[in-house]
Amino acid sequence: MLKINDNFQKLPGSYLFTEIARRVAKYSAENPDKKLIKLGIGDVTRPLVPAVIEAMHKAVDEMGREETFRGYGPDNGYDFLLDAIRDDYKERGVCLERDEIFVSDGAKSDCGNIGDIFAKENLVAVCDPVYPVYVDSNAMAGRLGDYVDGKWNNIVYMPCTMENGFEPALPDRVPDMIYLCYPNNPTGMVATKETLKKWVDYANEHGSVILYDSAYEAFITEPDIPHSIFEIEGAKNCALEFRSFSKTAGFTGTRCAYTVIPKELERGGVSVNKLWARRQGTKFNGVSYIVQRGAEAVFTAEGRKQTQETIAFYHKNAEVIREGLKSAGLTVFGGVNAPYIWAKTPNGIGSWEFFDKLLREANVVTTPGEGFGPSGEGYIRLTAFGGAEATCEAVKRVASVL
Amino acid sequence: MLKINDNFQKLPGSYLFTEIARRVAKYSAENPDKKLIKLGIGDVTRPLVPAVIEAMHKAVDEMGREETFRGYGPDNGYDFLLDAIRDDYKERGVCLERDEIFVSDGAKSDCGNIGDIFAKENLVAVCDPVYPVYVDSNAMAGRLGDYVDGKWNNIVYMPCTMENGFEPALPDRVPDMIYLCYPNNPTGMVATKETLKKWVDYANEHGSVILYDSAYEAFITEPDIPHSIFEIEGAKNCALEFRSFSKTAGFTGTRCAYTVIPKELERGGVSVNKLWARRQGTKFNGVSYIVQRGAEAVFTAEGRKQTQETIAFYHKNAEVIREGLKSAGLTVFGGVNAPYIWAKTPNGIGSWEFFDKLLREANVVTTPGEGFGPSGEGYIRLTAFGGAEATCEAVKRVASVL
Repeated sequence: MLKINDNFQKLPGSYLFTEIARRVAKYSAENPDKKLIKLGIGDVTRPLVPAVIEAMHKAVDEMGREETFRGYGPDNGYDFLLDAIRDDYKERGVCLERDEIFVSDGAKSDCGNIGDIFAKENLVAVCDPVYPVYVDSNAMAGRLGDYVDGKWNNIVYMPCTMENGFEPALPDRVPDMIYLCYPNNPTGMVATKETLKKWVDYANEHGSVILYDSAYEAFITEPDIPHSIFEIEGAKNCALEFRSFSKTAGFTGTRCAYTVIPKELERGGVSVNKLWARRQGTKFNGVSYIVQRGAEAVFTAEGRKQTQETIAFYHKNAEVIREGLKSAGLTVFGGVNAPYIWAKTPNGIGSWEFFDKLLREANVVTTPGEGFGPSGEGYIRLTAFGGAEATCEAVKRVASVL
Repeated sequence: MLKINDNFQKLPGSYLFTEIARRVAKYSAENPDKKLIKLGIGDVTRPLVPAVIEAMHKAVDEMGREETFRGYGPDNGYDFLLDAIRDDYKERGVCLERDEIFVSDGAKSDCGNIGDIFAKENLVAVCDPVYPVYVDSNAMAGRLGDYVDGKWNNIVYMPCTMENGFEPALPDRVPDMIYLCYPNNPTGMVATKETLKKWVDYANEHGSVILYDSAYEAFITEPDIPHSIFEIEGAKNCALEFRSFSKTAGFTGTRCAYTVIPKELERGGVSVNKLWARRQGTKFNGVSYIVQRGAEAVFTAEGRKQTQETIAFYHKNAEVIREGLKSAGLTVFGGVNAPYIWAKTPNGIGSWEFFDKLLREANVVTTPGEGFGPSGEGYIRLTAFGGAEATCEAVKRVASVL
């Protein structure tokens, strides 16, 4: 008799955004006349820029002609895209080889699948609150023990709260896998070079590996904030990095991302880069040629200029939310180097309660902080990815019900 | 100290097609004047059909306009594609619900990732020879024990040879996960309804699950051969099915596939469909909108007509190879309901030896049968996916060196 993976049965309820979608659908069905504004899920709304569209049309045409048709591509991406990514890193002083970059269909896939190459016995540390995929994927792999009273009992939660300025302390119990995400989802906060150096030194000292998610690096506006962990000395010996075109260039529905694993990264004498290459070679067959051509165009002069305009558009929204909620009396964080605003709920009410209040009274969809982990309780997340008018209207509505 | 997944260290050498690519690259570097014809890897060469190209251009345009832009799609595919797939199944008498179909970026990904939802302790059975992904992905998960003398010591190999007409016997030791692939890769053979009924009854009797790969169903020409395992009574209680647009519609470089998991499929009271939905919801973010529109177009009247012409083109190649090699004195199988021809090596020489001989003397790249498993020794696989002229030329060259 086939046995299922019991760890799935330990997972609490449904994935966060599925639960939000359920509550929103229920409210909409009961109130079909209400027009909701969605600042919940971190999904972009601006169209793909002209440089990307043009490149994809060209690639579609190539696929329709025998002379230029492409079958299976390299598992880890075409050289044209790897080179563009490499050049982009070089601009920030990070030198990479082509085969240290692995192009994929999404950072969610990579974050979710990376655990395949590590033993089940590793201890995981996550910031709390945190992007749920880091936690859920490790729970599925059986690394986190059991879910008791809203927490996994074999994981290191590193609380990030107003009280510690959202900067987690180095853990007492030494973890093997440390997930860090900067600019942070959900808090919108960033890490300085000094903060990251502290983590790199800690990981190198203990043999831990940092799984660094920099999916939002394009939103950094302050000059001294690192965009990549590899800007930190020693990081190549202890870190790998996830990046994505989703938020940088509006690819959430187009699907392209990449993971960087330096060859210096070894554990137990084994190259982590080679393990991932083998994993991807066996379980992945590369990203659509058309999509890779679109991604390449993001790095052209035109593509850069155009995507920066889109990011500026979202930054304007972030400012509207940040300043609007502040004026309305809320305590808010983030939104300067990130598309996320993290707001304290008023009068200490629960985050799902505040979520429901905003849904029903303001008809604005947010994300309850508790969905990101125990220390997210008492906060909500708003995203700057909406339309300009809708964002202004949402802020007004929220202010009016406070 | 982070511990790696030791099971990766047990994997023998490199992935089959990586090793072939290495030998071919070496030969080409040493003999730059030789023009190789590649009938090795199962990659298509005909361009995408006009209906698909047109649909993708339209979708690219939509992504460039604010009113029609699409962000994150549903994890498991857009309704327009799910409905087209559902209708296609209905034509063969198989009724499915939308949420029994999971659209993905490739059958390789799905075959590789499906093990996530099953316990490590399950016993795996594979046909021998077999598509290496079934074996390697389970080895990575630690299901197969150790690799000793060219075999894993905790797997049920089901030999498929000339002697048993390439039809594996029901195993003595009862497996929990049974991989079946028809039309078969690499042998090109098919299973009748009676054969599949035998497997379905066996799986239902023992609580096993059949992982059925029908990626090549579009190549079936004989009328009574089932295209889906769900054409067999009782299959919904014991099977899931992998399908792909790769070979059906030339999507190897475009990337789209789907997996069907009926709601009737339960083990230990748990819905396998729900487990996979949770796995995909956590570790996957859907297929590019543009690609899904292309896939949808495969099912239109125009798309069907055009892709059938492409398949007829490959069938003609298959016939040329089959008949040509027969005339040259080889014993050959497959190539009637499949794009693969499975040929016995002459005079009982080894499959890698015959591969090297054909590479060096005929400048034709094939796939050595041993790469597909122990019982593949003594055979090579040729594919019908080349150009018409190149295929004729390759057959002539092979014949001339025999």
